Amino acid sequence: MACPLCEADGGVLVHRATRWRVIRAEEASFPAFYRVVWHDHVAELSDLSDADRAECLAVVVEVERVLRVQLGPTKVNLAALGNVVPHLHWHVIARFASDSHFPDPVWAAPRRAVDVAALAALRARLPSLDQAVAAAVSAVGATR
Amino acid sequence: MACPLCEADGGVLVHRATRWRVIRAEEASFPAFYRVVWHDHVAELSDLSDADRAECLAVVVEVERVLRVQLGPTKVNLAALGNVVPHLHWHVIARFASDSHFPDPVWAAPRRAVDVAALAALRARLPSLDQAVAAAVSAVGATR
Repeated sequence: MACPLCEADGGVLVHRATRWRVIRAEEASFPAFYRVVWHDHVAELSDLSDADRAECLAVVVEVERVLRVQLGPTKVNLAALGNVVPHLHWHVIARFASDSHFPDPVWAAPRRAVDVAALAALRARLPSLDQAVAAAVSAVGATR
Repeated sequence: MACPLCEADGGVLVHRATRWRVIRAEEASFPAFYRVVWHDHVAELSDLSDADRAECLAVVVEVERVLRVQLGPTKVNLAALGNVVPHLHWHVIARFASDSHFPDPVWAAPRRAVDVAALAALRARLPSLDQAVAAAVSAVGATR
């Protein structure tokens, strides 16, 4: 079965490194939704070597830090699920108390209508947010 | 506001270490659902020092490994959300193709009725599973 994360980046490419990439998911209701995708087709975090796992998680943490500094979200959500696409990828999502699902996970049913103005304001920040994410993650693993 | 993870273990205590504990959540439809709870009241993974973060994630990975070895699940799901309880805790969940929500996240709407017999069989394994988890995580961070 073809794997969509082996065949394509999986979203807007923010930074590509030797062993992983950061993409921005294009989820309509959650603009500040990034994914750290490990290039190799492995299913589980524990499939990685200790060094690879540390590098992968360092990237996740760097993305989280940028979201916190740049956006001051109510919460950051991290998840590695992979039930549909069992190719290791981490969701890193800035959540806001006013978003359509808060405090439920983004995979639950919405609690309220999207705040169109808030989403537009957040989307306007994506070019600089992408740049800040790329800058933050670019040093991770570079010396291995 | 009182924090439930500061006030109580938050589930069936499987192992308590100096800086964290592993509990088993008592989620009716997902018996093999563990949580790694950091003792200190911090909200985000990036609030931890590098050493603490590495220790926390080493525990998560050990729990994942035990679930894979003992249960051979279709997938392991990892998540740190904390929208409702912003006290760092990791969900580590063994997922099965036949479970009520697969391949959706456990927080989505169910796709099918629970398989009562499969759940009972899984529940019967929990005492030995808890023991295996406790044994696997007990060495993490012990020498710091």
